[in-house]
Amino acid sequence: MSHLFKRLSSTATVTIKATPSKAHHHAPLPSSSFPKGYLLTGLHAGVKKKAGVPDVGVILSTSDKQTSAAACFTRNAFKAAPVLVSDQILSQNGGRARGIVVNSGCANAVTGKQGLDDAWAMVRAAVALLPASQSKHEHDTLVMSTGVIGQNLPIAKILSGIRDSSNTLGSDFSAWERAAQAFMTTDTFPKLRARTFKIGGVEYRLAGMDKGAGMIHPDMGPASTSFSSGQLHATLLGAILTDAAVSPRSLQNALTYAVERSFNSISVDGDMSTNDTIVVLANGAAATGSKEIDEATDPEAYEAFKKELTAFAVDLAKLVVRDGEGATKFVTVIVKGAPSYKDAHSIASRISTSALVKTALYGEDANWGRILAATGSIPLSPLPTSSEVPQIDPTKVSVSFVPSDGSSTLPVLVGGEPENVDEVRAKEILEQEDFGVLVDLGIGAEEATYWTCDFSYARICTH
Amino acid sequence: MSHLFKRLSSTATVTIKATPSKAHHHAPLPSSSFPKGYLLTGLHAGVKKKAGVPDVGVILSTSDKQTSAAACFTRNAFKAAPVLVSDQILSQNGGRARGIVVNSGCANAVTGKQGLDDAWAMVRAAVALLPASQSKHEHDTLVMSTGVIGQNLPIAKILSGIRDSSNTLGSDFSAWERAAQAFMTTDTFPKLRARTFKIGGVEYRLAGMDKGAGMIHPDMGPASTSFSSGQLHATLLGAILTDAAVSPRSLQNALTYAVERSFNSISVDGDMSTNDTIVVLANGAAATGSKEIDEATDPEAYEAFKKELTAFAVDLAKLVVRDGEGATKFVTVIVKGAPSYKDAHSIASRISTSALVKTALYGEDANWGRILAATGSIPLSPLPTSSEVPQIDPTKVSVSFVPSDGSSTLPVLVGGEPENVDEVRAKEILEQEDFGVLVDLGIGAEEATYWTCDFSYARICTH
Repeated sequence: MSHLFKRLSSTATVTIKATPSKAHHHAPLPSSSFPKGYLLTGLHAGVKKKAGVPDVGVILSTSDKQTSAAACFTRNAFKAAPVLVSDQILSQNGGRARGIVVNSGCANAVTGKQGLDDAWAMVRAAVALLPASQSKHEHDTLVMSTGVIGQNLPIAKILSGIRDSSNTLGSDFSAWERAAQAFMTTDTFPKLRARTFKIGGVEYRLAGMDKGAGMIHPDMGPASTSFSSGQLHATLLGAILTDAAVSPRSLQNALTYAVERSFNSISVDGDMSTNDTIVVLANGAAATGSKEIDEATDPEAYEAFKKELTAFAVDLAKLVVRDGEGATKFVTVIVKGAPSYKDAHSIASRISTSALVKTALYGEDANWGRILAATGSIPLSPLPTSSEVPQIDPTKVSVSFVPSDGSSTLPVLVGGEPENVDEVRAKEILEQEDFGVLVDLGIGAEEATYWTCDFSYARICTH
Repeated sequence: MSHLFKRLSSTATVTIKATPSKAHHHAPLPSSSFPKGYLLTGLHAGVKKKAGVPDVGVILSTSDKQTSAAACFTRNAFKAAPVLVSDQILSQNGGRARGIVVNSGCANAVTGKQGLDDAWAMVRAAVALLPASQSKHEHDTLVMSTGVIGQNLPIAKILSGIRDSSNTLGSDFSAWERAAQAFMTTDTFPKLRARTFKIGGVEYRLAGMDKGAGMIHPDMGPASTSFSSGQLHATLLGAILTDAAVSPRSLQNALTYAVERSFNSISVDGDMSTNDTIVVLANGAAATGSKEIDEATDPEAYEAFKKELTAFAVDLAKLVVRDGEGATKFVTVIVKGAPSYKDAHSIASRISTSALVKTALYGEDANWGRILAATGSIPLSPLPTSSEVPQIDPTKVSVSFVPSDGSSTLPVLVGGEPENVDEVRAKEILEQEDFGVLVDLGIGAEEATYWTCDFSYARICTH
């Protein structure tokens, strides 16, 4: 094992590797790829000190059809006011909502009754922007907040900002970009993605934005709607918009599935926020007269939509890891050969959050011993079909490093036996910004993927 | 929130706080406080490169009574060869063993059949040092290893070292110190403690040694003896010796209880090793003719012994945290008002391992939001007496910082409401090397204590 240095016995000076700018991950997108029937904006309302920086965003569906809405919220016991309010709205409205209002700079978390009043006031202000004729529900928008916790919102400024947002609502790239900017806290670039897809010959669009940076280890469950509940601080927030028509139930089920395999499969620092929220709206504006996609009436269309939504959510989730506070590496952790998806996911999560693994990744040290120790540190779960609890068999476990440049993988442990590792080749892989760690348990057919980053000096210094 | 700096956009130079020497925590102890009937030594056998540094240790019971032995081992799935061998010996011998052999510098982990052969060879070499007349069992000593994983032991050197140890076996302070030194890896000082206690008017002695530094987040279960199994890399190793007479069953039960509240309640980096092992020997050499303490025949004496063993184990465990790799703070995390000990312990563990909490501790930042987010990130467990799962009530939770100098505590959150915190006073407490974090859930009567340290730059750099 290499020792950069073992212990600081006096005041020492350390030279730190550069963290390259990640801004190239944000680029203009063609207007044709954004879903129809949405108006958006972001503007500076004065939550953040710096003039001109967007801190309030509004997303409205202008479709003449009903708009379905679904969400996954943090499972943290200290759910912030906007989480509680959005969950209640989805439940009251039966999975319908026509918009989203967001602020950054203050999380409205641990703010008691005042916090709830403020979140409701944001909702009412955003609803007032919708054409009255279209609103079926008194509370027809959801609400999200991110930023400092334990402080009340500067609510007068925010309400004024929401009112002013009507002046700049738009549907072109710059409108989408402004909305994405309003989500940002310590993020170094806005995170906006869009794509088109076809189901049954009809073209639909998906676009979305999210933010992360710190306190990123989401574990979100579905909203407390009648058909299926849950919670996420810096916080993961995301909004996904589509012009497909999807029933509320199927939209929630597809989102719950997608979130488990995307946002619930990323970790920056292993800490779960009180505000994590992912919302999806489906407004049916792509095609007139088309029926809502529903798993009962058209399972094939539902599966196709779920697949598209999951792949898109993975794209958005990866952006959060790439821009994680202090991250210099983007590491894909794959656990295969597991008896259950749950076991594969738990072990991938454990590897992805191990401080010793993450510091070794930063140090570009092929320390498979740390990966193995993390792998073996959690018990497997009982299988539903048997009373027997599966056990890891050390003689069946293999570990490899996987380069991102298409060159061959480097096995470091095969069937429990350490390989004679080519240290030069290991360094070649670990010096890359992107690479993978593959752990094969060799005792099952299930597989899970997790996306994580290293622990660099910047992590220690970033609050 | 203070920002030392937010993001390194270019190569930067950082000045790092000094990590003061902890060597004052090791001091001579009077020979009268060491338990009777033990011979010990430590010597340089050549596992470690540096000449003269002890890397093999031997502890032998010379009592003419039977010596009881118990152990807790890491629960990691990749149990190292010495863990598997020691567990088997305890099982075969019905909880009896007369000694311990240890090496540092190589963990004999992930070493397959050769590793098991080597561990058995160490046992046989140590047994050969016992007077033949006293050995009731072929394999009458336990074995422990710590150091690099995935490499075979330099077994010839080690066996030669064990044979040579007979030249320097002793019972004075320097013999105990040599043995303690043989446990060390990245530890900066040997960890040796001793104390006397009385049960039923008879004076007994307890002495012990341990080592830690990195990969310290033990979760150890009892040995697979017939009456009650489990595993711990840098690794936690410890040996506790007493001259009380205790039945094998009661010794294991007392150790299991003590380990849960001591070694299983510490964390340096949140990572569990493949080698963690705590062994206790009880040789009855204090008093001739006394009966073995057993929970069935004398519950009062058993409870008194369990209490002494637990307090002593806590002392040894705390030394490991104080000397943790990269640690500059010693932080006691107390969770009270919990519905069960298990919940209190799980939440204290979660707070103690949160990267965001640990970096805030290093930054001397009274960031109760991070403490709260960690507290709320794990679900409570069902109570055995009810099908209802308890829930954290955010309006009942209080958080305080507790200074170590006897001055008053600083509440930062009371009944879910943030206090107007005196930042100067907060800084006074957080600048201390030792302080506490107290979380009161306000929904039960159970309490658990955890000991942890901060994440400093040294942590990132220490491999």
